[in-house]
Amino acid sequence: MDTHEKVMDLALRRGFLWPSYEIYGGTSGFYDFGPLGATLKKKLEDKWREYYCIREGFLEISSPTITPEEVFTASGHIRSFVDPMVECKKCKEVYKANDLIEETLGIKADGLSYKELEELIKKNNVHCHECGGELSEVWSFNLMFKTHIGPGSKKVGYLRPETAQAMFMLFNRLYGFYRKKLPFGVAQLGRAYRNEISPRQGVIRLREFSQAEVEIFVNPKEKTHKDFRKYVNEELRLVPGDGKEITLPARDAVRKKIIMHELLAYHLVLVKKFLEEVGIPKEKLRFRQHMKTEMAHYAADCWDAEAFTERFGYIEVVGIADRTDYDLKAHIKHSGADLSAFLQFEEPQVIEKTALGANLAKVGSRFKEKAGKILNAIKNLEENEIAFFEKKGYIDLKIDGKNIRLDKNYLSTKKVRERLAGEKILPHVIEPSYGIDRIIYCVLESAYKENGERKILSLKNSVAPIEAAVFPLVAKEELTKPALEIYENLKNQNFFCIYDGADSIGRRYARVDEIGVPYAITIDFDGLKDGTATIRERDSTEQKRIKVKEVSKILKDLLEGKTTFKAL
Amino acid sequence: MDTHEKVMDLALRRGFLWPSYEIYGGTSGFYDFGPLGATLKKKLEDKWREYYCIREGFLEISSPTITPEEVFTASGHIRSFVDPMVECKKCKEVYKANDLIEETLGIKADGLSYKELEELIKKNNVHCHECGGELSEVWSFNLMFKTHIGPGSKKVGYLRPETAQAMFMLFNRLYGFYRKKLPFGVAQLGRAYRNEISPRQGVIRLREFSQAEVEIFVNPKEKTHKDFRKYVNEELRLVPGDGKEITLPARDAVRKKIIMHELLAYHLVLVKKFLEEVGIPKEKLRFRQHMKTEMAHYAADCWDAEAFTERFGYIEVVGIADRTDYDLKAHIKHSGADLSAFLQFEEPQVIEKTALGANLAKVGSRFKEKAGKILNAIKNLEENEIAFFEKKGYIDLKIDGKNIRLDKNYLSTKKVRERLAGEKILPHVIEPSYGIDRIIYCVLESAYKENGERKILSLKNSVAPIEAAVFPLVAKEELTKPALEIYENLKNQNFFCIYDGADSIGRRYARVDEIGVPYAITIDFDGLKDGTATIRERDSTEQKRIKVKEVSKILKDLLEGKTTFKAL
Repeated sequence: MDTHEKVMDLALRRGFLWPSYEIYGGTSGFYDFGPLGATLKKKLEDKWREYYCIREGFLEISSPTITPEEVFTASGHIRSFVDPMVECKKCKEVYKANDLIEETLGIKADGLSYKELEELIKKNNVHCHECGGELSEVWSFNLMFKTHIGPGSKKVGYLRPETAQAMFMLFNRLYGFYRKKLPFGVAQLGRAYRNEISPRQGVIRLREFSQAEVEIFVNPKEKTHKDFRKYVNEELRLVPGDGKEITLPARDAVRKKIIMHELLAYHLVLVKKFLEEVGIPKEKLRFRQHMKTEMAHYAADCWDAEAFTERFGYIEVVGIADRTDYDLKAHIKHSGADLSAFLQFEEPQVIEKTALGANLAKVGSRFKEKAGKILNAIKNLEENEIAFFEKKGYIDLKIDGKNIRLDKNYLSTKKVRERLAGEKILPHVIEPSYGIDRIIYCVLESAYKENGERKILSLKNSVAPIEAAVFPLVAKEELTKPALEIYENLKNQNFFCIYDGADSIGRRYARVDEIGVPYAITIDFDGLKDGTATIRERDSTEQKRIKVKEVSKILKDLLEGKTTFKAL
Repeated sequence: MDTHEKVMDLALRRGFLWPSYEIYGGTSGFYDFGPLGATLKKKLEDKWREYYCIREGFLEISSPTITPEEVFTASGHIRSFVDPMVECKKCKEVYKANDLIEETLGIKADGLSYKELEELIKKNNVHCHECGGELSEVWSFNLMFKTHIGPGSKKVGYLRPETAQAMFMLFNRLYGFYRKKLPFGVAQLGRAYRNEISPRQGVIRLREFSQAEVEIFVNPKEKTHKDFRKYVNEELRLVPGDGKEITLPARDAVRKKIIMHELLAYHLVLVKKFLEEVGIPKEKLRFRQHMKTEMAHYAADCWDAEAFTERFGYIEVVGIADRTDYDLKAHIKHSGADLSAFLQFEEPQVIEKTALGANLAKVGSRFKEKAGKILNAIKNLEENEIAFFEKKGYIDLKIDGKNIRLDKNYLSTKKVRERLAGEKILPHVIEPSYGIDRIIYCVLESAYKENGERKILSLKNSVAPIEAAVFPLVAKEELTKPALEIYENLKNQNFFCIYDGADSIGRRYARVDEIGVPYAITIDFDGLKDGTATIRERDSTEQKRIKVKEVSKILKDLLEGKTTFKAL
């Protein structure tokens, strides 16, 4: 067994991760989180909320996953959220074309055109891996799950491929909520869906997965962060577009323009801090900049936080993108809604601009009852139309469906002064987007240790699903009674804890080590005399004697990092 | 405006609930939770976890929402999860037939047959509400959203209509996780979907909603709860199947067989306690037993916790059902998996049963090389087949596709003794199933108060999205600086709090009252002298002076109910 198999074996046996629909033969791309997996996930998400919702102040929203078609027409997903697919002409097995080429030929095939993929298949005689049959042409498969809203097939809907779109559509509501001030951010945790063609990597490539996304709306001219100074010296391990890895402080990465701007750099640091805190060690972490060919259709600059895994190498776990105003613009275009922000000037500005004036007598005598409409049309001309008149000496107006040409006999330019309190702008969007399931896999793999026959899951306290185990040294009533009392007391204080009285104490320690319980509290005969118990630390396997009365206080301080085991 | 409109107006303005896809004209049946709504939802769900996951010990799992078709064939949803639908022949508007009849004729039409619905429509001349057109026949519309998994249309999937099925399918995994002991429970919070025909009640009838469900697997003979004695005197307001409301202690409801058994009664009490704790007052709460005609296809007994709303009357917010072994049986039948539990007897039991013995000489000489197969078939006969032989004196066996009749010349009965360590049983399932969105609406409506022009949201501390507001009395630096310090300090301790320095202090109090902030802390000039601040309670509007150093301690104790405002 390689490490991946060992981790997945433990995850399966002990209730972290279970392949879905097992009794019906399974369906690839779907996993259940068992009791320990779901609890770990919950704790990891709550830690994420601490970082983003509480400390950064990006409040959370929660939107539907079913989304009507027009949203993804606007966002570009109908057109661009596709994978190149080939089918075996004989056995009908389907493949993602670039994956098949990468597997068969051992070359990178991401970002190649459909024609290039087809040529590679032909030239290298690539055939179906299942039956050796001939492969079809490469065609485009949209990765969104499609459904219909309401009876009939009139209203098409898709399951969202990212949680982000809701936050763009809600821009006006959110902008109002934050009292019309930039920057502001909004967070969303929830399911997203990708109808992968043929997912074969278990929990690494799911068709239904959990995202935690933040959209930060900023003034395009102010891509800074008020607290960047706290992080300027944080070392970042970067693989920029040129592929040459470099490790340097955040400040230098911005100064050398390796990272586009300070705000992006700030969020790279935050991602690094979060991933380290939940248990992905920094030596397994790097940030890779997207090459132009692999960049999502909406992004101007994008960095992936990648975590190292034994079987899959470096895999993306977080994307940090500058989506510019791509999404707001797209929704403005398709919905007609005004999704702009209004930036008040510090002082109102007076600007001079060119306007058009009409010779009222001439317009009136020639156009009679249409004169009013013509004057109105003139008033509403755009700047570029006025510039056209200045240059060409005429302009064409559409009045009641007819073209009317007006020249210098009827119109003349004049300079006017206008007083502006501010200007409308389209905010840019910075987006850290976390793939929760992959992070959980990496957390498990990073935590997995062996000591002879024994397996230990060295989970960080912040994500350990069970916080403490309570044991009687042996299953005698004089010990089980006080042990159960401690257990009930901890439970009533909302600790996630378990009680176990079966088998030898050694086997019980081994059982809880394997599921990552950081502390075990044992009642023994010595303790009965002086009201004490032992507390054992999973990673060091050391034990200390503490007062039973202080168990919950000590446990709380240990879990919150307010004290260390050594200091007890 | 009626109360519903007032609540929804506040919810819209202040960022609790926003209709989804507004900029594209909206899609009925979908709502976004804005920043305050999502935070309230999160707190309510965490409170729920406290009740069920921590205190009852029902660990949480998390499953995919996309589910392959065979699961719902087994569960009965393909066949039974349907609504009667009519369509206008002229304008194609669709209606849920019983809703249309109820609205038009003002009579209850739930549970009527399609024929009865059609007759009511004809007899009463019911027409389309939109255009007056003639209505179609009543037909069956399946309420599950359909999609396809992977490319092509071979693998059909549905969005789950309840979170429950995953927990039934995972029975073996869960049973193992709980070390093969009954009872155990498992919880799941997550999205569920119903493709409602024509939802018109906003957040009360959503196409995508959040459920919190528990499935408790029990020995069918032990539908009890070890802690029922704690709750025996809890008063329950019940509307049993006969429609006659009665209020009585839980113990009596069980004794009088109004509630089927103790375990169901225990969970009715738990539901009541939870709903009261999050803010639905007991006078607005009742439990209504399902009539046979409206019972879900899987339930043996079912009670709805109903909450009173001003516009919709009593609406279901929680269902508490005894699903018996319906679901496990269904999945056994369709998947072939063994989903039984093994109940160990206290002492191994020795039972006497009848077996069949063969006259080997006679069987051998007549059937020659087939004799082996015949003896094997005899060994595998079921009890009822042996009883048949005892009664009739012969039995027919199918050997290699041919019928072979054996009579008393070949076979005879004998008594044998068998030693059994235990027996296989199918657990029954008790299910409390919460509709989170409806509960949130009821919490908001119950919390909504008016005092002249001012609106107050008297949310319980446990669900108030913002826990405290920090104000400087006026926006002068000597006050804003220490106020911001308090704010930052609270935020660092993970309190959800806001800082506000704009407008008069009265307007600021009004603003936070409206979004349910329970406490406001204000720094004033007096406080600068002696290191104090005032703390104001939302509901009483009373103020007390406390030490700045103690703000976070006092706030924590107030929020956790460890002290009262009066006691400060």
